[in-house]
Amino acid sequence: MRGQRIVFRRQPRIVAVSTIAGPKECEGIVGRYVETPLADDMFGENTYEKAECKMLSHVIDGAISNAKLARDRVDMIVSGDLLNQIISASFAARDFSVPFLGVYGACSTMAESLAVAAAFVDAGYCKNVVAATGSHFASAERQYRYPLELGTTRPPQSQWTVTGAGASLVSSAGDGVRITSATLGKVVDFGVTDVNNMGAAMAPAAADTILTHFRTTGEEPEAYDLIVTGDLGALGSRILKDLAWEKGLDIAGNHVDCGEIIYNVLEDEFQGGSGAGCSAVVLNSYLYHKMTAGSLRRILFVATGALLSTVSSGQGESIPCIAHAVTLER
Amino acid sequence: MRGQRIVFRRQPRIVAVSTIAGPKECEGIVGRYVETPLADDMFGENTYEKAECKMLSHVIDGAISNAKLARDRVDMIVSGDLLNQIISASFAARDFSVPFLGVYGACSTMAESLAVAAAFVDAGYCKNVVAATGSHFASAERQYRYPLELGTTRPPQSQWTVTGAGASLVSSAGDGVRITSATLGKVVDFGVTDVNNMGAAMAPAAADTILTHFRTTGEEPEAYDLIVTGDLGALGSRILKDLAWEKGLDIAGNHVDCGEIIYNVLEDEFQGGSGAGCSAVVLNSYLYHKMTAGSLRRILFVATGALLSTVSSGQGESIPCIAHAVTLER
Repeated sequence: MRGQRIVFRRQPRIVAVSTIAGPKECEGIVGRYVETPLADDMFGENTYEKAECKMLSHVIDGAISNAKLARDRVDMIVSGDLLNQIISASFAARDFSVPFLGVYGACSTMAESLAVAAAFVDAGYCKNVVAATGSHFASAERQYRYPLELGTTRPPQSQWTVTGAGASLVSSAGDGVRITSATLGKVVDFGVTDVNNMGAAMAPAAADTILTHFRTTGEEPEAYDLIVTGDLGALGSRILKDLAWEKGLDIAGNHVDCGEIIYNVLEDEFQGGSGAGCSAVVLNSYLYHKMTAGSLRRILFVATGALLSTVSSGQGESIPCIAHAVTLER
Repeated sequence: MRGQRIVFRRQPRIVAVSTIAGPKECEGIVGRYVETPLADDMFGENTYEKAECKMLSHVIDGAISNAKLARDRVDMIVSGDLLNQIISASFAARDFSVPFLGVYGACSTMAESLAVAAAFVDAGYCKNVVAATGSHFASAERQYRYPLELGTTRPPQSQWTVTGAGASLVSSAGDGVRITSATLGKVVDFGVTDVNNMGAAMAPAAADTILTHFRTTGEEPEAYDLIVTGDLGALGSRILKDLAWEKGLDIAGNHVDCGEIIYNVLEDEFQGGSGAGCSAVVLNSYLYHKMTAGSLRRILFVATGALLSTVSSGQGESIPCIAHAVTLER
C-alpha cells in the first residue's frame, strides 16, 4: 500500500454483471442497459424493504448465472446497503449458501465491495467473489427522512434515491473488465450539516480520494476515459470539480457523476440520483457495457458515501463522508 | 480458499491491543485485564452514542500507541458497530487520517474485522491495520428495544449488551499473537423470531462455522486450548454444544463463551453479555493476556452476529445469523 493505494498485480476481472432498476430509473439513458427493468417498484413484495432485499438477491443470482457458474463455485459475497443493520444484504445473503462479508460504506458500497472482492481474489484467497449493493427510494425516504405519506416538499439541493441494485462477479480468470488498483478513502468531514445536501457533504471526500489517487500514481486525468463519481449529483459534482481545480487538478474534461446521468433532467429529482444503488446500477449496466464494447477503455470509479444516521444528525453532528476508488481497465 | 477457510501463510500478528469497558463489565473476572476501566459509562459525553464512539476512538488510538506506531504508519482501520449506519465506527475513524473500511457483522464484527485485517496484511497490501469494534448497553437498548426510562422487564432468555470496546493492531511483523487462518461464515437462519433470545438464534450459525472449520482442517477440538464464541450467553452456549455434539463434534471440554464469562453471575444480565463489544473486550484483554503470558497457546475465536433490525422483526422476519472464526496462535 502506497498513499492509500493497492495495486492488484493479478488484475482480477469483472467477468459478469447484473442489474435491476425501477420504472423511473429505466426512463433515462442508463435504463436501456439495465438487465431487469421493473414495471412496479414493489417487485411483487408487500414492503419496500422486502422489495429492496429481493432486488439485491436477484442481481447476486443474476451475476452468478451470467458468469455461468454454479453457486458452490462462488467463494464469497461482499455486500452492504443503506438500511439499518444492512438487512437487505444480510437477508439476500441468506438465500445463498456462500460465505458473506457485510460491509457498510453508505453510497460508497459498490466501490468498497469491489475493492474488497478484488483484494481477496488478487491475494489468491478466492476465485470468484460477488460484490453487490442496492437501494430503494421508498425505504430510504422513510428511514432517513419522512414517511412518504406526508408528501413533504423536497428542497432544491436534494437528490432522489435510486431504486435499483447491481452486482459484479469478480474472478481470478476469464474475460471482462480488469480491476487494476484500489485507492481506499479516509473519512473526511468539512462540517456540512444539511442532510438535504449530500452532494456538498460528499464532494470533499471525493476530492480527497481523487487527489490522493493522482498524487500517488503521478498520472494526469487524461489517463482515464472517465472519472466517474457515485452520487454527488449536479451541485456536488460542481463542488468536486472546483475543489480539485483549486488543488491543481483539472478533471472537468472527463468527469461524470452517476447521479447526474441516471435520470432524465425533466424529472423532479433536483440534483439527480443518489443511494448505494445509483453507482451500482450505472457501473454494472451502462459503464460495463461501454467498456466491454470498447468505447471506454479505462475508468476511475469513485463511489462516495455519507456516513451519517438520523441519530447523529439529531445530536447535532456534521456529516462525515468517504470515497473509495477503483481503477477499471479493458 | 477451501471450505470457507483462508490460511494466512505469512501469519499476521496482533502486536498490540487496547480495551475499555464500563463499571459493570469491570466487576467480573475479565475486568482486571481491561486497559481503561470506566467509572462512568457516559465517558464524559452527553449522549450514549457519543460515549460509544469515544470508546471506540479511544481503543483505536490505544492500540496504535501500545504498538508504539505513529498514526501515519497505520495503513487502514477496519471497524463497525451495532448502531444504525455504524456511526460509532465512522465517526471514530474521522479522528484518524487513515483509510477506513466499514464493516457490518453485528456482534461478529471483531472476528470479521480481524479476518479482513489479517487478509490485507497477509496479502502484502498493508503493514499495519487496526481491527476494532465496541458497543454500549444504553445505546443498544434504545435502538433495538425500549427507552431505558420505561424500565421494561427483561425476559430470562435476554442478555446484557456490553459497554466496552476493543482494538487489535494487526501487523506483518513483530511479536505477538499470530492469526493463522480464518473461516468465513455463511448466513444461517433456523427460523428463531424471538428478539430476546439471541443466543438461540445465533447458536446454529456458530455451530455451522465451527463444524465447517473442523471438517476442513480435519483437526480435533483438543487441538485448541479454547474454542471461544462471542456472545451466545449461557443458553446459546448449551444449544451450540448440543448442535455440535449431534453432528459428532464434542466441544464441551474446551468451549467458553465471552458472554458467559464477562459478568459476575450474581448480576441481572440473565444469560450473560452480548454486543459487538463483548467479544472485542474479552479477546483484547483477558484472552490476549493469557496468550502472551503463555497459558493459552492456540484458540479458535468465533464471534457470532444476529443480522436483524427492528424493521425486519417488525415485518415478521426471523433472525438470520452469522459466525466468523479466526485461529489465533502463540
